Amino acid sequence: MSESGVVIHKGLENIIITETKLSYIDGEKGILYYAGYPIEDLAKYSSFEEVCFLLWHNRLPNRKELDDLKRDLADNADIPDEIVDFMKKIPKNAHPMDIMRTAVSALGPYDPELDDNSKEANIRKAIRLQAKVGTVTAYIYRIKEGLEVIPPNKKLSYAANFLYMLFGKEPDELSSKIMDVALILHAEHELPASTTAALTTISTLSDIYSAIVSGIGALKGPLHGGANEKALEMLKEIKTPERAEEYIKKALAEKKRIMGFGHRVYKAYDPRARIFKEYFRKLCEQKNEWTLYHVAEKVEEVMINLLGKKGIFPNIDFYSGAVYDMLGIPSYLFTPMFAMARTSGWTAHVIEYLQDNRLIRPRAHYTGQLDLKYIPIEQRET
Amino acid sequence: MSESGVVIHKGLENIIITETKLSYIDGEKGILYYAGYPIEDLAKYSSFEEVCFLLWHNRLPNRKELDDLKRDLADNADIPDEIVDFMKKIPKNAHPMDIMRTAVSALGPYDPELDDNSKEANIRKAIRLQAKVGTVTAYIYRIKEGLEVIPPNKKLSYAANFLYMLFGKEPDELSSKIMDVALILHAEHELPASTTAALTTISTLSDIYSAIVSGIGALKGPLHGGANEKALEMLKEIKTPERAEEYIKKALAEKKRIMGFGHRVYKAYDPRARIFKEYFRKLCEQKNEWTLYHVAEKVEEVMINLLGKKGIFPNIDFYSGAVYDMLGIPSYLFTPMFAMARTSGWTAHVIEYLQDNRLIRPRAHYTGQLDLKYIPIEQRET
Repeated sequence: MSESGVVIHKGLENIIITETKLSYIDGEKGILYYAGYPIEDLAKYSSFEEVCFLLWHNRLPNRKELDDLKRDLADNADIPDEIVDFMKKIPKNAHPMDIMRTAVSALGPYDPELDDNSKEANIRKAIRLQAKVGTVTAYIYRIKEGLEVIPPNKKLSYAANFLYMLFGKEPDELSSKIMDVALILHAEHELPASTTAALTTISTLSDIYSAIVSGIGALKGPLHGGANEKALEMLKEIKTPERAEEYIKKALAEKKRIMGFGHRVYKAYDPRARIFKEYFRKLCEQKNEWTLYHVAEKVEEVMINLLGKKGIFPNIDFYSGAVYDMLGIPSYLFTPMFAMARTSGWTAHVIEYLQDNRLIRPRAHYTGQLDLKYIPIEQRET
Repeated sequence: MSESGVVIHKGLENIIITETKLSYIDGEKGILYYAGYPIEDLAKYSSFEEVCFLLWHNRLPNRKELDDLKRDLADNADIPDEIVDFMKKIPKNAHPMDIMRTAVSALGPYDPELDDNSKEANIRKAIRLQAKVGTVTAYIYRIKEGLEVIPPNKKLSYAANFLYMLFGKEPDELSSKIMDVALILHAEHELPASTTAALTTISTLSDIYSAIVSGIGALKGPLHGGANEKALEMLKEIKTPERAEEYIKKALAEKKRIMGFGHRVYKAYDPRARIFKEYFRKLCEQKNEWTLYHVAEKVEEVMINLLGKKGIFPNIDFYSGAVYDMLGIPSYLFTPMFAMARTSGWTAHVIEYLQDNRLIRPRAHYTGQLDLKYIPIEQRET
């Protein structure tokens, strides 16, 4: 409440702005469901394509529906040459999310159904967007590294094709599965700032590309999408498990924020972090390379001992950066990859919100002066 | 409230999300202040540049400060050749707001202070954005019409230069003043969807360009930025004042929405509409061309008689389209012009919000199923 007794919902904390059938989070218990299915089951048994279908249609596909979706995603993965050219001309030091935001914005006018906000048309556009955003993400990497872009391999799964477009060879089974799980775990998470920005944008009956562009712009912020980059940086800086305790205690004493821990909604262990940790272990096993894993495990132990009683536990960002690093992906690509996965959730929310649209128009509490007298500039004091 | 007793703030109606010193609206009385000054005084005595300064600094400038700002706006009005080239390559039938959103997104990486979210750096970026968005808007028109772009004339005021970049000649005094007033009246309006999208985006500590891109995407929607286009269309369709009453009654009977009337916040005559109407009259006088004016006046009279007691009155969109039309500006440019003016308010809100930033993260109420059992795809029913 402000001094004047007006209630201000700063950050909209705990304010419920809509109904959803897309995801259910129980932050106290550390539970996450997509459209009724526990995230653990989806990570274990399903694929990213199945999850996309689940989010867009609120049920799992049958075999034919899944095959159709896979084909549609493959068929729509190309992006216009003009956009690729323009991506190459953006200043070399540009933030990858600036390139992604601009490229996705530029894709809008190419969509033949841009102005049709019906559910059916928006699902078709969601497929096109999802297909192209993977290509955009991979091309950001190739262009930034000064390499030729690698057009999509339409025979591969979404996850495998993404790794193929990055590195030019078909990934092994474990890498492919881990990439798929990473996409599933990042696909949807109710109403973070990015999804809220997308809904606010679509609520004016704008178009789905405008909404996703808003989501990308919001995800760029370090309070939202940039945390796994920072968490990885920290693990690499700590270097050995023996240095973890001292490092963390020192950082906390200096009131530094430990990235990859704590969450506005989760006051328990983030279920996505648990899944990522398991795959992180498998990857370390495959590569027989354990340093980062042991550092992370020790940091986790120290942090939970110190702050677990305050509800601060590892979140998804703590392990995802380390996993991507072991897959050979540079950290500047982590947030675009997050956006690539979350495009499925953003588009699903946009489609759902439009079924019962209401223009989002909050108010502000005015705390400035009133009834000032306009004084001509010649008489104004300097 | 939902069936389950959960309170859902759909559309965030009447939810106060932040404090502001930027604008004060009393919707019941039809009052609008920018930073303490009645909108009527600002429209009458000040200039758009003065209003920009007022919004960014929360006070009016002295002569030197105003001259500096004018020079800064002029000096920053050019946009990179690559972006102009790319604007030319965007498909010819693209929505002007798609072009604007993409161009402004592309400008981000060119800003040397992009990553600096300090107040001072953001004010400097606001100036650059404001300078360039006028050029982007004018170039959209020139490119869409197949004409050569006209670089900014740095000796003119912001309003006069904008008309110069459209038509290639210095505007007369009345046109210049009307353009200036139009910019002032559209500069700021508390927290509509576009500003809310911008704040949601910046609340992750993203950057000011990302925030403005979100604002542009939201303004594109017909529930927000597109109304004056539709209002003008209606006036032209009615053609003569004699046909107004029948037309309106028929449209209302068919439950059609009459564009340019009613407002989520104003339940009285929109003060901006009153000012626009006055300049509309002056322009009709200058051109001795009264048809549109008389149609509009009659529509207003009929609507207020029928719906005034419900709090439905003309809003800013009702007269602005007609005024732009008489200035020779095609209707597809109205929403980009709105965005051009509102960039001042969006950037001011972003700068203000960052002084006491809080990540925007609302919640959704889950209404779907829970604990569904994952059935392998081979066993799923088709």
